[in-house]
Amino acid sequence: MQSFNPPVRTLMGPGPSDVHPRILSAMARPTIGHLDPEFIRMMDEVKAMLQYAFQTKNPMTMPVSAPGSAGMETCFANLVEPGDKVIVCINGVFGNRMRENVERCGGTCVEVKDDWGTAVSPEKVEAALVANPDAKIVAFVHAETSTGACSDVKTICEIAHKHNCLTIVDAVTSLGGVELKVDEWGVDSIYSGTQKCLSCVPGLSPVSFNEAALDKVRNRKTKVQSWFLDLNLVMGYWGQGAKRAYHHTAPVNTLYALHESLVMLKEEGLENAHARHRAMHNKLKVGLEEMGIKFLVDESVRLPQLNSVWIPEGVDDAAVRSELLTKYNLEIGSGLGDFAGKVWRIGTMGFSATEENILFCLAALKDVLGKK
Amino acid sequence: MQSFNPPVRTLMGPGPSDVHPRILSAMARPTIGHLDPEFIRMMDEVKAMLQYAFQTKNPMTMPVSAPGSAGMETCFANLVEPGDKVIVCINGVFGNRMRENVERCGGTCVEVKDDWGTAVSPEKVEAALVANPDAKIVAFVHAETSTGACSDVKTICEIAHKHNCLTIVDAVTSLGGVELKVDEWGVDSIYSGTQKCLSCVPGLSPVSFNEAALDKVRNRKTKVQSWFLDLNLVMGYWGQGAKRAYHHTAPVNTLYALHESLVMLKEEGLENAHARHRAMHNKLKVGLEEMGIKFLVDESVRLPQLNSVWIPEGVDDAAVRSELLTKYNLEIGSGLGDFAGKVWRIGTMGFSATEENILFCLAALKDVLGKK
Repeated sequence: MQSFNPPVRTLMGPGPSDVHPRILSAMARPTIGHLDPEFIRMMDEVKAMLQYAFQTKNPMTMPVSAPGSAGMETCFANLVEPGDKVIVCINGVFGNRMRENVERCGGTCVEVKDDWGTAVSPEKVEAALVANPDAKIVAFVHAETSTGACSDVKTICEIAHKHNCLTIVDAVTSLGGVELKVDEWGVDSIYSGTQKCLSCVPGLSPVSFNEAALDKVRNRKTKVQSWFLDLNLVMGYWGQGAKRAYHHTAPVNTLYALHESLVMLKEEGLENAHARHRAMHNKLKVGLEEMGIKFLVDESVRLPQLNSVWIPEGVDDAAVRSELLTKYNLEIGSGLGDFAGKVWRIGTMGFSATEENILFCLAALKDVLGKK
Repeated sequence: MQSFNPPVRTLMGPGPSDVHPRILSAMARPTIGHLDPEFIRMMDEVKAMLQYAFQTKNPMTMPVSAPGSAGMETCFANLVEPGDKVIVCINGVFGNRMRENVERCGGTCVEVKDDWGTAVSPEKVEAALVANPDAKIVAFVHAETSTGACSDVKTICEIAHKHNCLTIVDAVTSLGGVELKVDEWGVDSIYSGTQKCLSCVPGLSPVSFNEAALDKVRNRKTKVQSWFLDLNLVMGYWGQGAKRAYHHTAPVNTLYALHESLVMLKEEGLENAHARHRAMHNKLKVGLEEMGIKFLVDESVRLPQLNSVWIPEGVDDAAVRSELLTKYNLEIGSGLGDFAGKVWRIGTMGFSATEENILFCLAALKDVLGKK
């Protein structure tokens, strides 16, 4: 058995995105203990920088020690009590996963369905809340990674609060890529991932909870069903003013990587990062449209960082992606669910959103599609 | 905000242990996609090498994408159904954590208690099984990280099977450090961590399940309460002959690190690794005893890789550990629970178990204790 030396790819799928060399080398720094005073100082910096990224003052802002799916489960397992009614907005894969979470927490799910590729309809959310006055929570996805549609977080949160509901927001693909203002928009709980627009390695899930959400967690009648994700325990390690009591062994080196990616986000500035994602999207769009390739999502709700496009008629999905990978070391994403074989997902996230990559991706696609 | 440059420590606490430079640099290799054919090839190698480390042919042997606590929860959430009676052996912190897991899964816990610092008593396990013929599972810790006591896996598994129970074994601190034969000893399910005797970074939890355990998972009456840890779903990504269907985004770079640590384990050979841990323990023991320092755990059940020793009378626990850290960049562990302030835990795990470290640790301790 030999050491594994991965090929050097350009990652323009739905994530992981390309990881900047600064982040890779930060991760390779010597491991120290998860209770080391120097590590605890770094944890505080990570929390402060995540507050900046989420645009929140929530003290309970931290990375869960596992991928985005565990961040999702952290929100649902802590906030949904058995018997709670939850409005779940489904317009793609990740809305469906939210429903799975509600059911496994013993909650009752009220589905608000929108077509894949469209945004969540605030009107439908309002109607569901009127029809279900006993609902406790509204859950929805900001940036649907399976389609590339962006939903209106601010409006949906306003509607939810008017009906005395808390909100759970999936920001896995939005954080760092498009505007996201947790405090100003009234988001109660939110989770994200590190491997999308933050350009960090996969494995952590930044989350944030406001006081209203934490109140619900503190006053639960039953214990959180997950010991690993129970915020009442995790707060003893990550919480403000906490004693940094041992709960589990933090993924030390992956946290070095997240720290570095957040330093880079601060250096660039959130608004500049958003503008770069937008500019690279526009460049990609012009090139793709020149090739006659059409977008799935209407321009009004289209995410700049996740470009779902229809596969041209007669083109073999798998053959093209395979040739891009083997000939050019370029990864683009396949469609999920109903869109399998019909759609490609081209990611322009984080460090993947550069001028070089856009030119390269367009040229490689042109070559493989035989339109040189 | 600036990049984080950790101090260079020598890690001789209860984990994380020192990570070998080969493993750190493997982790810094370029990220590729979690569905990339090259990544999937690497996953197969990780599985094969974990089978070697666990001494098992179980096809369902893989790393959970989160720390050891999540590996523990993977076993309990999948195997314990609401109403199941579980015998939980408690002789330290991690037995208590098992009880928490059982209760949060809706199981009924029958505690078998032994003094902290002693091994689990097979006789008490047998008595509990006789008194509870409806028990379904026996759960216990092989190597108690909070005390350094080693329990008899083979005997306890035999007793459990005689009473038609499945077993859940905590091997977080044992894997790679002492003999562990999953198949020969009849272990049904087991979890470990990467940051102990494998000398890898923290963040992953190797697990293994035999067919009897998987049968119970497949035939559950209720869904596994955790979506993230549901083996029925995870098997679609990691399972033998699986389609490698997307479940969650694997922590790609941390898996590079685990791969490299397992390559190093194969190079050294399991038996040689065990012998090295034993030899370094003996060397440390001689030095500590020369200083009049006594061990907590009786020699017959003492783990070589986790050395719990009584803090000499009149010595200030925190002051000594703090001086070791600031003057010598040496981390040793504090006592947990009842042993806080009374015991130190000196780890000689993985890459920390070297001649250099033993000499250094003894000399530093002598200096700080004023016994030069």
